[in-house]
Amino acid sequence: MNPTEVPDVVVLRLPLYVRALTQLLAGGGEVVSSQQLGDLLQMTPAQIRKDLSYFGRFGKQGRGYNIRFLREELRRILGLDRYWSACLVGVGRLGQAVINYPGFVPEGFDIVAAFDRDQDQVGKTVGGLKVQPMSELSQTIEYGSVPIGIVAVPAVEAQSVIDDLVTAGVKGILNYAPVAPHVPLSVVLRNIDPVLSLQSMTFYLLSDKERAVS
Amino acid sequence: MNPTEVPDVVVLRLPLYVRALTQLLAGGGEVVSSQQLGDLLQMTPAQIRKDLSYFGRFGKQGRGYNIRFLREELRRILGLDRYWSACLVGVGRLGQAVINYPGFVPEGFDIVAAFDRDQDQVGKTVGGLKVQPMSELSQTIEYGSVPIGIVAVPAVEAQSVIDDLVTAGVKGILNYAPVAPHVPLSVVLRNIDPVLSLQSMTFYLLSDKERAVS
Repeated sequence: MNPTEVPDVVVLRLPLYVRALTQLLAGGGEVVSSQQLGDLLQMTPAQIRKDLSYFGRFGKQGRGYNIRFLREELRRILGLDRYWSACLVGVGRLGQAVINYPGFVPEGFDIVAAFDRDQDQVGKTVGGLKVQPMSELSQTIEYGSVPIGIVAVPAVEAQSVIDDLVTAGVKGILNYAPVAPHVPLSVVLRNIDPVLSLQSMTFYLLSDKERAVS
Repeated sequence: MNPTEVPDVVVLRLPLYVRALTQLLAGGGEVVSSQQLGDLLQMTPAQIRKDLSYFGRFGKQGRGYNIRFLREELRRILGLDRYWSACLVGVGRLGQAVINYPGFVPEGFDIVAAFDRDQDQVGKTVGGLKVQPMSELSQTIEYGSVPIGIVAVPAVEAQSVIDDLVTAGVKGILNYAPVAPHVPLSVVLRNIDPVLSLQSMTFYLLSDKERAVS
């Protein structure tokens, strides 16, 4: 597999496959067909086979996939079989909430450093971390020891903070600011997007009447 | 179309179609084939045709889709052609960040009320809203005027706050707490999940060496 040849939307779907397989495994399953996996994820079996084909051959024709093996392989391919360090920029309301988010560590993600541009925030302790000035960014994350940067600054500051993180050597950015920032091709950007969640919710909130007259 | 017969994962994909169509429209496009739309979203044309088939016939065989028409129809189907009111529960660090999030209003989502269980928070003004006690919840959102509840409370409180929102008549819940709460079938739940974003990022952070030896 050449990672650059895998479409990003396929990579975006892989964690959903891992979760579905985890669920099947927890339910005592051993083997799953692309049809069954497709039913669970509401995707066509052909789409699932095509997605998985980027990463090798995981099943024998007509025999389905070994759930445990496929899950382990996908976790390995995604890099979910190891711990990842992240640094946070912005320790305002949102940043403090992010640093205290209890969902990261159980999944292997650890925020190990916090930074802020505001000198008034520097030196404070937030979520057990001493807030550092931006000038210490590159020193702290050098040698690729902290490959992920989490951005929790206001929208107007996001692009320049992201530029600083990229310059310091971060390879992946999780952006909470409601902007669509630019990053070099060598850096992966993921935006937290609550609007996307709402936009697929409202479908269910329309009454039959509203649906008919609109 | 019977909304209950549309698989949720199909509904989850529709906003992505709308965004792709918006992008095509902004680029001056008029007609798009399921092949081209598939290339943009990295989905098979068959998957796209199947997804859209739940909602009617949008194109003529061999002619492709009219971009503007398909976008308008999907926006109407999703209910994105109107404004939606939401209430927020929890005005701590995360809740304050949510209430000040500038991405909601331009997309038609408006937080019109804020609540907190903590009496010390009640009466404060946050993001232009006076924080109300939970006892005023059902009164404020009655008659379905506020169909969406946004939950920004700690994990341990999330389920009981969600129960309160459901009792008060909310039909959709956007949950920021890192838990997997239960809701009745008549209520739509969307969880904000930063871990999912990280899990599709780490794929790109593995070096070729790590990928080979792992």
